[in-house]
Amino acid sequence: MILKDTIVALATASGVGAIAVIRLSGPDAIKIANDCFVSIKENKSLLEQKSHTLHLGHFVHQSRIIDQVLVSVFKNPHSYTGEDTIEISCHGSLYIQQEIIQILLQQGARMADAGEFTLRAFMNGKLDLSQAEAVADLISSDSEASHQVAMQQMRGGFSNEIQLLRDQLINFASLIELELDFAEEDVEFADRTEFKNLVARIQLVLKRLIDSFAVGNVIKNGIPVAIVGEPNVGKSTLLNALLNEERAIVSDIAGTTRDTIEDEIIIDGVAYRFIDTAGIRETKDVVESIGIQKTFEKITQAQVVIYLFDLSDTKYQIYSIKTELASIKNKFPLKQLVVIGNKADTISKEELEKLKIEIPELISISAKSKLGIETLTNELTKMVNIGALNNSDTIVTNSRHYDALLKALNEINKVDEAIINNVSSDLMAIDIRETLYYFGLITGEVTNDDLLGNIFANFCIGK
Amino acid sequence: MILKDTIVALATASGVGAIAVIRLSGPDAIKIANDCFVSIKENKSLLEQKSHTLHLGHFVHQSRIIDQVLVSVFKNPHSYTGEDTIEISCHGSLYIQQEIIQILLQQGARMADAGEFTLRAFMNGKLDLSQAEAVADLISSDSEASHQVAMQQMRGGFSNEIQLLRDQLINFASLIELELDFAEEDVEFADRTEFKNLVARIQLVLKRLIDSFAVGNVIKNGIPVAIVGEPNVGKSTLLNALLNEERAIVSDIAGTTRDTIEDEIIIDGVAYRFIDTAGIRETKDVVESIGIQKTFEKITQAQVVIYLFDLSDTKYQIYSIKTELASIKNKFPLKQLVVIGNKADTISKEELEKLKIEIPELISISAKSKLGIETLTNELTKMVNIGALNNSDTIVTNSRHYDALLKALNEINKVDEAIINNVSSDLMAIDIRETLYYFGLITGEVTNDDLLGNIFANFCIGK
Repeated sequence: MILKDTIVALATASGVGAIAVIRLSGPDAIKIANDCFVSIKENKSLLEQKSHTLHLGHFVHQSRIIDQVLVSVFKNPHSYTGEDTIEISCHGSLYIQQEIIQILLQQGARMADAGEFTLRAFMNGKLDLSQAEAVADLISSDSEASHQVAMQQMRGGFSNEIQLLRDQLINFASLIELELDFAEEDVEFADRTEFKNLVARIQLVLKRLIDSFAVGNVIKNGIPVAIVGEPNVGKSTLLNALLNEERAIVSDIAGTTRDTIEDEIIIDGVAYRFIDTAGIRETKDVVESIGIQKTFEKITQAQVVIYLFDLSDTKYQIYSIKTELASIKNKFPLKQLVVIGNKADTISKEELEKLKIEIPELISISAKSKLGIETLTNELTKMVNIGALNNSDTIVTNSRHYDALLKALNEINKVDEAIINNVSSDLMAIDIRETLYYFGLITGEVTNDDLLGNIFANFCIGK
Repeated sequence: MILKDTIVALATASGVGAIAVIRLSGPDAIKIANDCFVSIKENKSLLEQKSHTLHLGHFVHQSRIIDQVLVSVFKNPHSYTGEDTIEISCHGSLYIQQEIIQILLQQGARMADAGEFTLRAFMNGKLDLSQAEAVADLISSDSEASHQVAMQQMRGGFSNEIQLLRDQLINFASLIELELDFAEEDVEFADRTEFKNLVARIQLVLKRLIDSFAVGNVIKNGIPVAIVGEPNVGKSTLLNALLNEERAIVSDIAGTTRDTIEDEIIIDGVAYRFIDTAGIRETKDVVESIGIQKTFEKITQAQVVIYLFDLSDTKYQIYSIKTELASIKNKFPLKQLVVIGNKADTISKEELEKLKIEIPELISISAKSKLGIETLTNELTKMVNIGALNNSDTIVTNSRHYDALLKALNEINKVDEAIINNVSSDLMAIDIRETLYYFGLITGEVTNDDLLGNIFANFCIGK
């Protein structure tokens, strides 16, 4: 793929800010920018500037001054994309952003496709494919855990591990393919014991990476928590209490709104997605049965179930609560269940103690006065085993990688069997090549336009 | 005012983008950034870098890597604020933006107040006050006209003009004050004829600037247009047709949404704010009378009135339309009135011709099929005299400036009278000083904390 054209896009968030940054990349980036740039210093040309320098001037089109701008110059290969790159920092008005982009398009740039800057970085060898994918994860990371995993992947933690195994396997593959040339002499260039050790190592690493996907998925997508509870037991007050406790920091910083987190709440660096359900009430009523059905469907999607009820109502409900809890445990023996009694401030200590005899796992809280919220968050954190996150193990979060790892494991298992069964080198070589192919898919040594198209379509424009 | 602390804020629009820029300014900006920065080149310290250079590295806190960042270094006085300034370009995730800002706060920076970067630029003499105010106007400019006026003001067009008059007036003021020292000798150091010429020039310029405010206000705030029409005559179809015609360019650029323009539409570079009204129908019904009252109130706020009716309905309405038009013209003789018949495709040419005899000013359109929309936009553009915009005359858009100019004119008129009436120098000197005071308010030579507080509170944080 030859990248001859120069692309342009807004690199900062859309909307009005103090400043906005417009990015140009490609062989004509500096020329196109220079044609619209008048430095505050006379006769300064961007074409003659060193890489990694900043220049103040005006962005001018047909002698009309569009804005005072600060231009960053990055010379190939010392840029994000590996190409000549210009970043124009302008005032953040929508009008100015649009005008500058329109003028750059008129001057010969082309609007960048989604992720095209990163695609170019990949094509120019600045990043491997899994690192490029991590860029999108990094940008969309909204919790400490998802950020940490994306950062690790972007820094090559994951692909280095795969790359190392791939290099060792290639080494053996070439020896085995060499044996084919000497097939009639029945020699073994590849030491079978060493090779068997390598295959075992590869199997181990692949299994560990595949297992890590369960954690990785939780980290990337958040932990789904179903809240089961009748109306008015305090579901939204509970969510607000959790939200205030943990995300207060967000509202301190101008420009971040609560809208974006909706019902996702970060607790101790891990994202939880709260799923509201209608509650369970055993009944013969058809309409209510449908409601219960839906609640069960939502519990199926969840990893943790919070059963929330109103303590001020207990006297009348204790039997039905026990029935409902039993029903959940029965239907979903593997789900983690948290039982919460809300409005703890409405009943006496004695009553609460009696209740805890009936329901030992009960956590009593008052969402309104934020009593017991910390106990609840501790409980949630304990339940979610993200132990893997605390050491430096690589975690797989990308389902494309997961898929390739599964297929690679399948192929390497065939190689393993082939060694055991003393299968001929030519057949074994096929399985080895297949394994290498799936490794290559992850790091991007093996690729095609469809695959790249799929990956980069998920990026935002400007990255 | 001594600015000893270092301030930090997000400079780009809030939300998720490919990148975000965080700005640090103050005496410790470079040190604070350097404490969190590990260059990709070993042992590179930001403290030792030249101004206007860019550095790639990691933003690190307590050996945890937060992000790969690009750091711009600006050394005092060669920065926007005139202080040492650092811009950190990071990945645009909300999490990363927040973490970096939080860490910089922990390292000793303080969250910037609204407009504080620009306030510092003003305090350090990088901008005068009217230029600083223009920065906020520039950022919020959403049409070519408002952008052009803000740009002109930011480049000093307005303050240069005031400054020139102020300098000449100061010159005379000092001569006249000198006369006071020689009061008993009855000398005139200031040539009264020359002085009278200057005062006349000042009066002329002030009047022109004051007059320009009418245009300036329109440019800055848009032209209010009341649309008078019964339900279902096609008001929203008309707005959409205007919107599609003129703002198609907006939707081509990723990240700009139509939500932000609402019912404001830019036509030929000028913003129009469309105000929907309920229509007028003469009636004895109390409830309907209130509706008519409200329509008239809205017309009062408008500069242009569009009377919109449904041509397919004319036969039954022609009398009431003429009555309503007469009623508007009668009540608002100075408002510009545009009469539009919508759904022109539903009647024959002959019918239309007949109708135009009854209502000569009728513009027939079909909002749905976009027939006649261009005739309408031409008509709107003709009506709004923004002739001043086409030459390089200074336009006043800021009501604070307008107020100061009115007061300055009042004072200079007193000086004029004093010359005519041969009033003694000591009394005249007071009026001259008052004039200079109001000039100084505009450019910021005269200022106080309240005034500055008011001005910069309207800025966004990060600017």
